[in-house]
Amino acid sequence: MKTKLIALLLIATTFCTYGQNESELKKIENEILRNPLPSWNAGATKTSILEFVKKTTKKGSPDYVAVEDRIACFDNDGTLWAEQPFYSQLFFALDQVKLMAPQHPEWKTTQPFQAVLEGDMKTVLAGGEKAVFEIVAATHSGMDTDTFNKSVKTWIATAKHPKFDKLYTQMIYTPMVELLKYLRANGYKTFIVSGGGVDFMRPWTEETYGIPPYQVVGSSVKVAYDTISKPKLMKQPAINFIDDKAGKPVGIYQFIGKKPIFTVGNSDGDYEMMQWTNTATTPHFAMFIHHTDAVREWAYDRDSKIGHLSVGLDNAKKYGFVIMDMKNDWLQVFPFQTAEKPKK
Amino acid sequence: MKTKLIALLLIATTFCTYGQNESELKKIENEILRNPLPSWNAGATKTSILEFVKKTTKKGSPDYVAVEDRIACFDNDGTLWAEQPFYSQLFFALDQVKLMAPQHPEWKTTQPFQAVLEGDMKTVLAGGEKAVFEIVAATHSGMDTDTFNKSVKTWIATAKHPKFDKLYTQMIYTPMVELLKYLRANGYKTFIVSGGGVDFMRPWTEETYGIPPYQVVGSSVKVAYDTISKPKLMKQPAINFIDDKAGKPVGIYQFIGKKPIFTVGNSDGDYEMMQWTNTATTPHFAMFIHHTDAVREWAYDRDSKIGHLSVGLDNAKKYGFVIMDMKNDWLQVFPFQTAEKPKK
Repeated sequence: MKTKLIALLLIATTFCTYGQNESELKKIENEILRNPLPSWNAGATKTSILEFVKKTTKKGSPDYVAVEDRIACFDNDGTLWAEQPFYSQLFFALDQVKLMAPQHPEWKTTQPFQAVLEGDMKTVLAGGEKAVFEIVAATHSGMDTDTFNKSVKTWIATAKHPKFDKLYTQMIYTPMVELLKYLRANGYKTFIVSGGGVDFMRPWTEETYGIPPYQVVGSSVKVAYDTISKPKLMKQPAINFIDDKAGKPVGIYQFIGKKPIFTVGNSDGDYEMMQWTNTATTPHFAMFIHHTDAVREWAYDRDSKIGHLSVGLDNAKKYGFVIMDMKNDWLQVFPFQTAEKPKK
Repeated sequence: MKTKLIALLLIATTFCTYGQNESELKKIENEILRNPLPSWNAGATKTSILEFVKKTTKKGSPDYVAVEDRIACFDNDGTLWAEQPFYSQLFFALDQVKLMAPQHPEWKTTQPFQAVLEGDMKTVLAGGEKAVFEIVAATHSGMDTDTFNKSVKTWIATAKHPKFDKLYTQMIYTPMVELLKYLRANGYKTFIVSGGGVDFMRPWTEETYGIPPYQVVGSSVKVAYDTISKPKLMKQPAINFIDDKAGKPVGIYQFIGKKPIFTVGNSDGDYEMMQWTNTATTPHFAMFIHHTDAVREWAYDRDSKIGHLSVGLDNAKKYGFVIMDMKNDWLQVFPFQTAEKPKK
């Protein structure tokens, strides 16, 4: 049964992306609806999700929400995939510095690039936000958008996570991918609303999460249209939009144009998005992923720089935010781990 | 037969929006595919559209394009609906000035507002872009986004076009609505990419064109998240993005994140969008609507301030842009006009 489901889900990824066989797709959808969220343990969290989706999609329910208003927004780092020990985009930037170094001989003696090239992360991090910004700016601008997209695609297909030695597209949370599919099978449109770079996410979100580029909202640099030779868009070393904290409701409004009724995040950077979801006049659902699993993933919240979560926890009761407990609510975390009852 | 088709298309609008009956939807889709673009006259333009769609969607065709890459972008003013004698959004702004006047007694003696209130369009227009900008700024900022959306919805449901005395949602081009549906029935995703205000379009594009808010790209003012009382987004009197000329490829990249392979516009403001489409490595199609019909609509191009088209015409052959001739290529223009063979 479990094997059959996994096989169906694997097929689902293919068919959802390429829409090749409608009756197969229908079969998969029915299987998702018959046995929803198989990697979630039974309990209050799973029940709250299932009940919310049921009441908003059941014809005649007083809480019924029309299909066009079923908007679901998900943070990415720490919500759909892992964000420890650093954001994956930083690992990408560090690898790009190494790749680009031959064209920048000056980096051998200029910080923070020298430290990156020497693999000295301690010095890189000692440089704080300024150092990180310099690394990101150098690796995320000055090229045309097609070239950048290609470099992301190459990296995501080959680079591996330092702790788990798995591709970054394997560092996704199986229960969250199930949740995305379950929502879509119920007529929800799924969006990513992330502080991460939109240009870094779009090349792989469709294949990995079934979320197409135009449903991905993120931070961005400015681009300029350049027709000197062949028309192209050049990435500029200037910030266009920061999709974090109060920027999240702004980004949702400007890019999606509808208020979400279902939102999942994991850090205080998602707090305003949750707050915004709570102003919906229709039923709404907002959930924080609480990283509580030091064995299968990482355990962190109030004391972590990455994925810092404290305002969200303090206000959860007041605003009715659901706190998802990774250790207890998930039967499985990553696709490469075996599903097992969590150790209590 | 024609009557049956119209009835089916009317049903299609309902079902496409609310997704309530899949077998009905399938029937409508089959009818669209069986008799595509009924309001287009037979000829080179119609043939070029049908052949392009056929070759990009037929399995095994050397020009086959995967579903996820079938991105179609449409300008709005002058492409999906009429833009003469002025952009509809300007009529909206003028009406808003009248509605807001009681809260602004100073407008009685301040230009350009005084002229608007006195119905003196000559003086308004003599004020040029500065006057128009002042009117738009006064009516499109200073309120929260929900309030603005409501005012658009009220206006679009009641205001009428000065020449035709029809609702603005009736000032849409029947052949273009057919084209949107035909493309969607062939797996294309349809987007609006307009110089018009995105906040002005989104409240009605889903019902009118079947294009949801998150597939509408347009110009915008900045919004600020305000939590002083209930969380809300306040529209600021500051430009966020101008989605015109070189801004169109930039907007497409930032909001859609994919290159379109099918683009329709009608003015030089769409030229860069066409040029950008032409850089696609897959087959691509770019078409200008040429307003040649002084009887059923308006005839204008090189000498018009609104919908100015000259660079597009000059470069059409060089770049392979299709020039659609409204007078000869369309059997019907607006939904309230009878379909008839155009007078030659």
